Formats: sequence, C-alpha cells, structure tokens
Amino acid sequence: MQPPALSSMSCLVLGGGGFVGTNLCRRLLTSGARVRAFGRSRTFADELAGVEWHQGEFEDTVALTSAIASCDVVFHLIAATTPHSANLDMAGDLRHSVIPTLALLDICRSANVKRVVFISSGGTVYGAAKEIPIPETAPTDPITTYGIVKLTIEKFLALYEHLYGLSYRVLRVANPLGPFQLPAKAQGLIAMLLSRAINGRSTEIWGDGSVVRDYVFIDDVVDALQAAAVDTSAERIFNIGSGCGRSVRDIIAAIEAELGAPVPVEWSPGRPIDVPVSVLSIERARDVLGWTPKTDFTEGLRQTIRWWRARGG
Amino acid sequence: MQPPALSSMSCLVLGGGGFVGTNLCRRLLTSGARVRAFGRSRTFADELAGVEWHQGEFEDTVALTSAIASCDVVFHLIAATTPHSANLDMAGDLRHSVIPTLALLDICRSANVKRVVFISSGGTVYGAAKEIPIPETAPTDPITTYGIVKLTIEKFLALYEHLYGLSYRVLRVANPLGPFQLPAKAQGLIAMLLSRAINGRSTEIWGDGSVVRDYVFIDDVVDALQAAAVDTSAERIFNIGSGCGRSVRDIIAAIEAELGAPVPVEWSPGRPIDVPVSVLSIERARDVLGWTPKTDFTEGLRQTIRWWRARGG
Repeated sequence: MQPPALSSMSCLVLGGGGFVGTNLCRRLLTSGARVRAFGRSRTFADELAGVEWHQGEFEDTVALTSAIASCDVVFHLIAATTPHSANLDMAGDLRHSVIPTLALLDICRSANVKRVVFISSGGTVYGAAKEIPIPETAPTDPITTYGIVKLTIEKFLALYEHLYGLSYRVLRVANPLGPFQLPAKAQGLIAMLLSRAINGRSTEIWGDGSVVRDYVFIDDVVDALQAAAVDTSAERIFNIGSGCGRSVRDIIAAIEAELGAPVPVEWSPGRPIDVPVSVLSIERARDVLGWTPKTDFTEGLRQTIRWWRARGG
Repeated sequence: MQPPALSSMSCLVLGGGGFVGTNLCRRLLTSGARVRAFGRSRTFADELAGVEWHQGEFEDTVALTSAIASCDVVFHLIAATTPHSANLDMAGDLRHSVIPTLALLDICRSANVKRVVFISSGGTVYGAAKEIPIPETAPTDPITTYGIVKLTIEKFLALYEHLYGLSYRVLRVANPLGPFQLPAKAQGLIAMLLSRAINGRSTEIWGDGSVVRDYVFIDDVVDALQAAAVDTSAERIFNIGSGCGRSVRDIIAAIEAELGAPVPVEWSPGRPIDVPVSVLSIERARDVLGWTPKTDFTEGLRQTIRWWRARGG
C-alpha cells in the first residue's frame, strides 16, 4: 500500500520559528500541505506567510493542545538548550525538554496524531564514538546533558509506540548549515563565522581547530524530515548527515576561499563537551528512506553565503 | 596499589531502610565500616542497630547534604517507583528519581565523595533483548519508564565522571531474592508467593507463567555492591545476576517443592511492560570484580523461606 503523500496532510512544526523549522515550514507549504507552526517566537515572520502560527511556550499544554488539534504529523524540533548551555542547568533541561515532551506525546495520543518526527542530535547522542562513521547501532554515551536529554526523549518515543501505538521516527541530525541559521546560543559554527567575517569581526573558536564534524545542508535535512514523516519501514532511527568529516580549520579555509578574504579567529581552550570526531554513517537513511544528501558542502556554503550577503551580514 | 578496604571507610546507603539497603547495611557493619543510612522509612529498624539513621525525603537536599558529609562511598539504592507504577506517572518518575539524583551528584562532588555505586535494573534497561544471556554491551531499549529512568541516571553518572571526575560504578541487578524483601509495590515475585502461600492465600500472576527471569540471592548482590565500591578497573557497568533463567512456573514449582504444599495462584493477562526473557550475562563481573554468585537458587530460596517462617509469614 502506498503511504499517503505529505501534501495531503496537516502538519504541525514545533519550533517552527527557528532555523530548521523555518526551512521545513516553507518547503511543506510549497508541497501543498496544510502547515501550522508552534513556538516561542518567529525570527523570520515574513518568510512564514501562509503558515498558521501558534505562539506559545512548550510547557503550555493548553496552547499545545490547540495547535495539535486535527494535525496528522507533528515535527518536534524544540530544544530548550544547546550542547553548551545544557550542562549549566541539567535538571532544568529535563524539566523544560523531556517533561514537556511527555505531555506532548500524551496530547498526540489523544488527538490521534499519525506520526511524530523528532530531531535528535547526531553530534551528541553517541559521545566519543569508537567507530567512524558512526552507525545508528553504535553505543550512545553522551558527554553533554543535551545528548542525554535527546536520548531520553528517543527512549520515551519508543515507549509510547510500545505502550500506545503512537508512531514515530527519530532523525539524528549532524551539523546543519544554510539560510535562516543565526549564530545565536553558541550554535552553528558556519553561521557564526559567516556573520562575523562579513562584518569584519573575529570569532572565538574553542579548541585548536582539529575537531571534526559532519555538516549537512538544510535542504537535505528537510528532505529527510519529509521522508521520515511518511516512512513505513521497520526502522525508527536515522542518522542524517553528509557522511563526510570536516575539521574547523577545513571550514575556515573553505569560507576564506569563498569570501576571498581571511576569516579572523580567536582561539580559546577546548571544551570537555566536544568529542574530537563526529561523522555519521548515513547508509540506513539511503537504503531505507531512499534519501541522499543532494547539496555538496561547497554548494551549500555558497547558498548560505548568498543568503548572508542578501541580509547584509 | 591496593585499593583501600571498605572496612576503613564511611559508607552511606541511600534507601538503607529497604530490602537491599537493610541487607547491605548489616553486612557493611560486620565488615567494620562506619555505616550511615538515609531514607524515608526503615521497615526493620531493629535490624539496623549500629547504623546511623538519617530520615528524609530524597528531594530534601538539606537532609541529604547532612547525611553525605564526610562519607567516602555513597550507595544509591533509591527508586521512587516500580517497573509497574513508573508508567502511570512518567514525568513524576523523572521528577522524583532523576532530578534528585542530579542534586545528589552535586552534593557528592562538593563533599568529595570517592565513589558512588548505583543500583540499576538488569531486568528493564535492556528491554526485549535479542541476545540471551544479555551482555552489558547489548542495546538498551527499555519498555518501561522505570528502565528509562535507570538508564538516564546511568548516563548522568558517566557525565559527572567526564565533567567533574566523580567516580562511579553501576550494577544492573537482576531479580534479587532473600530476607527482608517484602511483597510491597508489585515487586518481588518470590516474596509475594511466599508470604501469601505461608498464609494460605493465593497470588495474582500476570501472564501465563512462561516469563523467564534471572534470580540472584541478596547476599550475592551485597558482595557485588561491596566489590563495586572499591573496584579500580576501567569498567563502569556490571550485570549482577545468576546467569540462569527461571520461568514463573519454575519458581512456583520450586516453592511448592520446598514448602511441600501447593502454591495457590490466580492467572491474569500479561502486561506490556514484561519482556518475555531476561537473563543476564555475568562474565564481566566474574572477570573484572572477581565476583561470583555463591548461593545457588534452591539454597537462597530455603534461606528466604526460613526467614519468612521465623516472621510467621
């Protein structure tokens, strides 16, 4: 049986005003789906024309219930913290991320939501992996609260399916880059470097630049979110990345090549929450979702730079 | 370098008034250690003569700080729920188990505690295991909130060691049996069957009796807790069980053989939180801790029956 197309569905994007959310909402709209977004704020309200916006706190179950009503698919993109800030208030991260997610899942059950798609963290749930690229079956030993919280939510999603039949998919996404990513909250190395370099300002980098990460263009992440929403396979968890590793120094060199100018950097001591290498194996998403990253790194970087230049840095 | 003997240390047993805690406190006392116990209540106060008792709620950080002061080793045996009750209030289990554990770990850091030993759940953290007996490296996919909570605490223990150097060991204990286990809170099949059979009452059993579990005598669990307190290996997580599986029907037959009388049972439908088979591989504990279960099942059952008879059922 062919799964129903996403274009015939009502979609709710939790965290729809953020980087990934803004990109996802815009794509869902063009695909013909009815799109609602829920969040604390919209950074790019003009870009979300046509999206039914529900303003609210994640802990506000009344607002959440109203946003979820009659939706088929719920994309859960809300993170209360970042890998850096989560360790500063571990209990707070549980209170603001995990506990409201349990309330969310209860509402989804009552509202007969057909699928929950959750963005987990490909860069933090595995911790210091022994096998590179990292398959989904690798041990999950996070060295940040952020990763523990994402992992705990994954476990509760599995429990809700087991106990109540609530269908879900998890995408463990690597480091996304692209338009609408702002360098807020110590996230988004490329956005940080670009926004500052374009304005002639230097960026503080933790470590010696040898840390290797997996960067994936936002359009490819959105492809994966859409595929996960209608996937009928037996898999539940998918790594989403490029499958290739790039060091911080590689990234700086690539930006300098594109900008044709040096990128000023201030080096600071490394952080204990940064694993040395994180590159995801993406074979499962290729095989099962039929997904593949279509935008290579340089092309993604160019599109991102174009967007920053259009904004005026 | 020889690790310091436990007998020269100050030990705190959180949950010291419960089944495992009472047994552990008594053994620690006989080994010469200074023993403090902390908990909401003591079921067997007379049996804890010589133990410095601190009454308190786990969430009471003032009481906890006072109990922890000048202790070398903290045994964390507190569980706010049971595998059955945890699913009834998932958020509550996070609030009452995980969040107070984070406060506990912060207090342990400040108090320079040398080792935290945590009892996790060998029967629930793995979920429906594909490999029997289950090694510590098996996937951890719990099908109860109880297991998710235990697993989340394990992850935070690893994080505290990574970030702050707080030393820890985790014991994933199978189903313990022995003196001082009461059939409260839908836990402890053997205690339940014994206490009721001795009084001629029947016991409600979920499922058809085919569910297989790994039963380990409490004295062996206490041996493992003591070994974990002074272990200097590179391992952090140890399964503690007998390594052998016994079905509910096996257990009933064994009790009938020992009592020389039928054990009346009422069969009820199975629960979705019960995995069909859970038997732990105990090779790691054998190899690394030099631990081995010394009391075979029948002998452990006899000692338990003797204890129940002395109580008058």
